Amino acid sequence: MRVLVTGAAGFIGATLVDLLRRRGTIGGRAVTALALVDQSVADAGDALAISGDLAEAATLRAIADFQADVVFHLAAVPGGAAEADPALGRRVNLDASLSLFELLAASGRRPVLVYASSIAVYGANLPDLVTPQTPLRPPLTYGAHKQVCEILLADFTRRGAIDGRSVRLPGIVARPGNGTGLVSAFMSDILYALRDGKPFVCPVGPASTAWWMSTSRCTENLLHAAVMDVPAGEAARAWPLPVLRLSMAEVITTCAKLYGADRQQVTFQPIPGVEAVFGRYPRLDDAPSRALGLRDDGSADALVRRALGEIE
Amino acid sequence: MRVLVTGAAGFIGATLVDLLRRRGTIGGRAVTALALVDQSVADAGDALAISGDLAEAATLRAIADFQADVVFHLAAVPGGAAEADPALGRRVNLDASLSLFELLAASGRRPVLVYASSIAVYGANLPDLVTPQTPLRPPLTYGAHKQVCEILLADFTRRGAIDGRSVRLPGIVARPGNGTGLVSAFMSDILYALRDGKPFVCPVGPASTAWWMSTSRCTENLLHAAVMDVPAGEAARAWPLPVLRLSMAEVITTCAKLYGADRQQVTFQPIPGVEAVFGRYPRLDDAPSRALGLRDDGSADALVRRALGEIE
Repeated sequence: MRVLVTGAAGFIGATLVDLLRRRGTIGGRAVTALALVDQSVADAGDALAISGDLAEAATLRAIADFQADVVFHLAAVPGGAAEADPALGRRVNLDASLSLFELLAASGRRPVLVYASSIAVYGANLPDLVTPQTPLRPPLTYGAHKQVCEILLADFTRRGAIDGRSVRLPGIVARPGNGTGLVSAFMSDILYALRDGKPFVCPVGPASTAWWMSTSRCTENLLHAAVMDVPAGEAARAWPLPVLRLSMAEVITTCAKLYGADRQQVTFQPIPGVEAVFGRYPRLDDAPSRALGLRDDGSADALVRRALGEIE
Repeated sequence: MRVLVTGAAGFIGATLVDLLRRRGTIGGRAVTALALVDQSVADAGDALAISGDLAEAATLRAIADFQADVVFHLAAVPGGAAEADPALGRRVNLDASLSLFELLAASGRRPVLVYASSIAVYGANLPDLVTPQTPLRPPLTYGAHKQVCEILLADFTRRGAIDGRSVRLPGIVARPGNGTGLVSAFMSDILYALRDGKPFVCPVGPASTAWWMSTSRCTENLLHAAVMDVPAGEAARAWPLPVLRLSMAEVITTCAKLYGADRQQVTFQPIPGVEAVFGRYPRLDDAPSRALGLRDDGSADALVRRALGEIE
């Protein structure tokens, strides 16, 4: 099985590649070749490195030449950066993704494509329970483009050209925070601060709720998504990853218990715009995702410990 | 008010332009300049003719130079043609539409854009009642691209760059049938055949149901959509036009009553693919659309007579 990862140098991509190398298989089938795609791929080891902008023809040609059986498409301009530069957001998050779908469709191999969508498709003003029927109202261009790519990938799947699977990633922790353009970076940053006994200014209030997952659980889910048995008639081909819904107060309590963190380390200075988008996640009906074998972290303790690299 | 129409040479576009000229106003405000955009615009009269491919830079520049206050975006590659040539469908129905949105957003005028979306966004396997919450599952690439443009236009509206209004057009009759790439052309063709006493082979059965509207009622709705008062918080900015839901048997009965048409003129040879997409439309909850002042044709008689040009 020939496997290609876009955004392979990103923190989820790098964790996914590491997992792929350790396992050597996906769903029991051996990974025989691996290609890593990113703006700059250092240390590809025995993998093929494809360094370049995903929006450029040369990069797309190299991807086409690789003839992948399974593609993990993680490359994206993050939400804050895309909102600040909509043209860049369009070029990478929309146009380049669609060009990738087209070249994979043209390969005639009907490859599996696992698309890293996002809970950014859901939007603000959600009902108390989010279900598969909840209308999507993305509050940022980033989420709009993720929703658009889900629709386009479902259309390629309908046409029998790609076996597309979009999974909506929740707040993934712990990721390196600074300079990545991720508005949600505070969710990771607070874990490090609490463990390390440092003060932290939190842009959402203690009662704010979010959907959490560790990076390693996320990458396990991505691998599983490539081989999970999707029932016929699942036209949308998109699923939220199952989540732990935790308030900021619950996260702080967990860190206090695990690391002796002190609640006084945290000063709450809620920013309305951030809280509206990242602090009001209601309950999620993720039963269809669980039925496919996708999983959350199990507990707040496990989430935090996995996020900080203490357990697998 | 400076008004621009894309797809102005198409049958809906030409009818809309005619209506605009006769009225001279939209919502009581005078139309001071009119621009007609299409591949080839003949006889623009006192309007500015912009002949060219909407996907080409020169065409987009001419549109930008016009500095429109209101845009009706009707240009599209029809469903059958887009399905046969996905690259063409992408170029016009997706890329060119998005480029149009971008240049209008860049104008700084926050123009009103009425986007001719389509009931092709809904898809097969609909519930007995279609509501604003019904998930969209477009069964053709044409419908997927229409849904995508609705989302992108809603995002430009959220950003305050365009005042977007997507209206989903149902089966519009009577439109010229041959060679337009419209799979739904049979809905128009059968009206002409029944009125003119000619035989007709119908690709859907007598009990098949569709959503119908005359061209002239459609263009009145498009004009109204430009000025209707949209409540704040309508994030999706997309509404189905109110429809008459009629079975093919009801349409034939109406033509028999109006024109003495004979049911024996019609031979039913249902094609499963056509019937699945165009013959199983359930009830539509169009109350939100009606509340905004959008209207159906009122009765089957009025629909058919208006479609065949007998009444306004």
